[in-house]
Amino acid sequence: MGLNVTQKLIKSHLISGEMVPGEEVGLKIDQTLTQDATGTLVMLELEAMGLQRAKTEVSAQYVDHNLIQEDSKNPDDHLFLYSATRRFGLYHSRPGNGVSHPVHMQYLAKPGKTLLGSDSHTCANGCMGMLAMGAGGLDVALAIAGEPFYVKMPQVWGIKLTGELPDWVSAKDVILELLRRHDVKGGVGKIIEYYGPGLDQLSAMDRHVIANMGAELGATGTVFPSDQEVKRFLTAQGREDDWIELVADDDATYDINEEINLSELEPLIAKPSSPGNVVPVREVAGTPIYQSYIGSSANPGFRDFAIAAEIVKDKKVANGVSFDINPTSRQMLTDLVKESHIASLLQAGARMHQAGCNGCIGMGQAPATGKNSLRTTPRNFPGRSGTKEDSVYLCSPETAAASALTGKITDPRTLNMPYPKVKELKNPTVDHTILDAPLPYEKARKIPLEKGPNIASIPEMDVLPDELEVPILLKMGDNISTDEILAGGARVLPYRSNLPEISKFTFEIIDDSYYSRAKKTVSEGGHAIVAGYNYGQGSSREHAALAPRYLGLKIALVKDFARIHWQNLVNFGVLPLTFVNVDDYDKLKNGDVLVVSNLRNKVKADQPFFLDIKGTDKRIEVTHALSKRQIDVMLQGGMINWVKNRQA
Amino acid sequence: MGLNVTQKLIKSHLISGEMVPGEEVGLKIDQTLTQDATGTLVMLELEAMGLQRAKTEVSAQYVDHNLIQEDSKNPDDHLFLYSATRRFGLYHSRPGNGVSHPVHMQYLAKPGKTLLGSDSHTCANGCMGMLAMGAGGLDVALAIAGEPFYVKMPQVWGIKLTGELPDWVSAKDVILELLRRHDVKGGVGKIIEYYGPGLDQLSAMDRHVIANMGAELGATGTVFPSDQEVKRFLTAQGREDDWIELVADDDATYDINEEINLSELEPLIAKPSSPGNVVPVREVAGTPIYQSYIGSSANPGFRDFAIAAEIVKDKKVANGVSFDINPTSRQMLTDLVKESHIASLLQAGARMHQAGCNGCIGMGQAPATGKNSLRTTPRNFPGRSGTKEDSVYLCSPETAAASALTGKITDPRTLNMPYPKVKELKNPTVDHTILDAPLPYEKARKIPLEKGPNIASIPEMDVLPDELEVPILLKMGDNISTDEILAGGARVLPYRSNLPEISKFTFEIIDDSYYSRAKKTVSEGGHAIVAGYNYGQGSSREHAALAPRYLGLKIALVKDFARIHWQNLVNFGVLPLTFVNVDDYDKLKNGDVLVVSNLRNKVKADQPFFLDIKGTDKRIEVTHALSKRQIDVMLQGGMINWVKNRQA
Repeated sequence: MGLNVTQKLIKSHLISGEMVPGEEVGLKIDQTLTQDATGTLVMLELEAMGLQRAKTEVSAQYVDHNLIQEDSKNPDDHLFLYSATRRFGLYHSRPGNGVSHPVHMQYLAKPGKTLLGSDSHTCANGCMGMLAMGAGGLDVALAIAGEPFYVKMPQVWGIKLTGELPDWVSAKDVILELLRRHDVKGGVGKIIEYYGPGLDQLSAMDRHVIANMGAELGATGTVFPSDQEVKRFLTAQGREDDWIELVADDDATYDINEEINLSELEPLIAKPSSPGNVVPVREVAGTPIYQSYIGSSANPGFRDFAIAAEIVKDKKVANGVSFDINPTSRQMLTDLVKESHIASLLQAGARMHQAGCNGCIGMGQAPATGKNSLRTTPRNFPGRSGTKEDSVYLCSPETAAASALTGKITDPRTLNMPYPKVKELKNPTVDHTILDAPLPYEKARKIPLEKGPNIASIPEMDVLPDELEVPILLKMGDNISTDEILAGGARVLPYRSNLPEISKFTFEIIDDSYYSRAKKTVSEGGHAIVAGYNYGQGSSREHAALAPRYLGLKIALVKDFARIHWQNLVNFGVLPLTFVNVDDYDKLKNGDVLVVSNLRNKVKADQPFFLDIKGTDKRIEVTHALSKRQIDVMLQGGMINWVKNRQA
Repeated sequence: MGLNVTQKLIKSHLISGEMVPGEEVGLKIDQTLTQDATGTLVMLELEAMGLQRAKTEVSAQYVDHNLIQEDSKNPDDHLFLYSATRRFGLYHSRPGNGVSHPVHMQYLAKPGKTLLGSDSHTCANGCMGMLAMGAGGLDVALAIAGEPFYVKMPQVWGIKLTGELPDWVSAKDVILELLRRHDVKGGVGKIIEYYGPGLDQLSAMDRHVIANMGAELGATGTVFPSDQEVKRFLTAQGREDDWIELVADDDATYDINEEINLSELEPLIAKPSSPGNVVPVREVAGTPIYQSYIGSSANPGFRDFAIAAEIVKDKKVANGVSFDINPTSRQMLTDLVKESHIASLLQAGARMHQAGCNGCIGMGQAPATGKNSLRTTPRNFPGRSGTKEDSVYLCSPETAAASALTGKITDPRTLNMPYPKVKELKNPTVDHTILDAPLPYEKARKIPLEKGPNIASIPEMDVLPDELEVPILLKMGDNISTDEILAGGARVLPYRSNLPEISKFTFEIIDDSYYSRAKKTVSEGGHAIVAGYNYGQGSSREHAALAPRYLGLKIALVKDFARIHWQNLVNFGVLPLTFVNVDDYDKLKNGDVLVVSNLRNKVKADQPFFLDIKGTDKRIEVTHALSKRQIDVMLQGGMINWVKNRQA
């Protein structure tokens, strides 16, 4: 039976497991991508693992998130990342080069390869005939160290594109249409694969737009074939040799089938405050705006900016509107300059910002209170813009530019002008030296990591002890989120590369005495926490496992775990246990001391066992759900030790 | 006897006083300039005064400082300022138009006029044959309301420029030479006036560079003649009609005479952390740098960026160096784009930032810890960059660009290339619509002020009461600075447009119970503070008088006052008293209640009078140093009331 592109990519990288949807498969990772907001911890993990050199074909570190330097913390991180790329044999993209996803596409993406990135929009490079997936930082660190990436085999959701995009409708409207149909959970457990005759008029960069926002559907990834258009793109980038053809077999099938007739689309917009809240632009036309924002990995193309420039050329944006232009790569900004588009935007009244993620991740450009912001970015979650109770709409560059002129949300079809058809450039300003290539190993191995005062190495982790006697420091209820375990936000985030400092915020929202009480247990054999159902829900942040571990957490005993946090606890060597009888939860209280002997054998035995409550005759039967591989990881004190031992 | 240009400007605007150095003169103000960091309070003062419409010829409000929008506070301020300019009949320059000083020069500056600005670098427009001075916000508000500006008649310091600048030496090196000779206090009480044959090769924008950093010498202002070069500049800007000739009479003399032979200059650099710490670049050549920064009002010209672009063209900046380009006006950025200079900078590895003050005022671009930053900005005070214990050098664009290429401080004369002579453009991209012109009054008077939740009007101020019974809430020692009265910094500054909020930080450093204790006195007749010598030294911030006044401060009784804070207390209606016998200071303690009757007549009488200490038989003889005009201001409860009554 024939294979679709997704199946071909998975099959050619399969290391373990079976290609049955829902089953765990282990995949070889060819390329990795990290950005600065997640990359500092990844590099510290590589250091802790004792990695000598990246084992992937390509690993690239981009500095695109934390570009605002209000004090020394961000530039210190930038220099640390630069030194780490020199040390470990990674590509380095300096601040000002632009957003990871389009830059990776221009210079490093390769059809037929797998790409794992510590950024949820890593899926954007699925436009290049790659299997590109976002993951947590430690997963990416493991991939850099040559380990497989484990993921549940997804269903493949085939979307046939037919027809032709009408004037004033572009790639962004295609993915907004899919979000309109299926909302933000519609892609969970699936890879979205596009095919059909409608592909022919979508440039590689248009496909990037569509692949990027697969993340907003919750999909594991998005895959486009590597066809003649990908060849054209790579040729223009001076990388014709990197092209291979990768298309679905004629008799390929999909687990789910759907069609989008491009001819039937119209300009769409996601209303506040969810990317799935999609309606036709005409339904909200006339709503006044404070801001029109162009840029981000969701509309990164030369075309996306050029068409906005053509729309506003020789006109003025409305009074009081902030028309924010956020270039996405050095190459495209240079071309937009050369082709006069930047001059058109400036003369129309635009604010030109540096190339990077910027306002899309709340790094500046927050809208005014109570005002509407119109953006070509992928997300409009509440407060993400930096403004509390914000009101952010997502749309195409055509809609954003038209609305900048009128000062209100405007269906671009109502502008009194012909549709300016802009094509990607035949000969863009390609410069392969903008990425610093990896150093040769002999040179790299001597490079020291450059750590500013806010950057702290990850301390050594002890192995799982055989005897435990640990007090319960916190007993919590159901649905404790990782935000409660370790908050995000501007107060906490600057310490993401400083485990001792960030750990001070652990459980602060629940009990601000936890930190000092926990710290004391480090030298006394550690401590335990107890919780109810769905422990660790929400964000996948690794620090929510790493910080408590650093503070001596040995056992998390709960009714059940949220999946990702459970995985993170395993990765960082905290034993995740569940009650055999959930009623036992009621027998425990803060201060009780849990005692267990011969723990290593008990964990290895993969059978329920007992924890005694010290000073009583009570005991609690517990169990774990670790796989054989994970038991091994746990015994060694977590994934960093496990890899370190394998590297040795 | 003939007059120099400064004397002509003062004579033609003299409203009161005599033109004798050291005597107070009142000057008619033709133009004002405000920026967003100081402008919000100025606009609130205009509101409190009940101003109907600006009475100046030109008043312009620029949004150039607080361009980073991490939350809604800054954009709310931007919208408030926009509405205030519409209401009061001001020009408005939107975010992205660039730094006030060069934009004002391009579109509004006029030879022969006076310009008062709430920004210390307002002096930059002295390059246009104007008398341009920086001042506090209330002074500028008063000027907008048609009041004169009072200043001590300065000495005129004539600087004759002879010779010709060598290759690789430019205007920045001229002003650095003056700082090398006279350090940062060298200009106090003086206006620096340039003349002589050396002027011929300095463009109007070069003169802007020199005039701008007169502020770093502490000068009251800098004056250049309005000659054929100013005519050329205005003609290129489409404003030939705004030109008048204004040059010194042939027999003009100066209070102080000095000469700079341009031929003898070489590339200079101010070392950390004072603009007066100047040495030849060659003395520090080889020092490694993290950052090379081009921009700010101290090097705002087309030429300044173009020459940097020519120097790095077809080359690459050194690895690990952040080459930060900060355009200074929309017009110049557009021209730099059109003339390919931006493309050259980008291809060399530059980071392009939005047009504005940016890192010069610590708004982003802070250097990494322990690393050297090389900047074309005017100031390198400790910590101003945002990084604690920073290490900032000041230099010309030539030196900054050369050093970006090598990664270390580099005398540009050592580059192996001919000096790229760049001229200002003959036909720049002039667009007179980039400033929003004032609305006609009939329309303007109906415009409401748009106040976000963080913008609070200045409350009504009561007049000076006749009977006072006020407790002493704080007794302090000598040399209390305005930083101790009301701190600056990122925690406090976002509330500069919100008096009730910012007042919570009053005296916090000295006694954090002051706020709550003082607030209670507002409804009980107010309170007093007592201090030793030099009370209110340091920064001129108005809030240090306004906030205590808001919290009920009626009397500041001290051994003596620092000049500017004394003036601010008068302006905001706090009675500034000094001891007739300084030993009486020792008789007072916290909690003592000061009692006085018939106070208004006693203040008017301009004689020493007594304050009784309640419940004792002790009395303290006190006096004030108010002028007749200031007594009138004080009786009415401060300058806002005084102007309000005059407007009525």
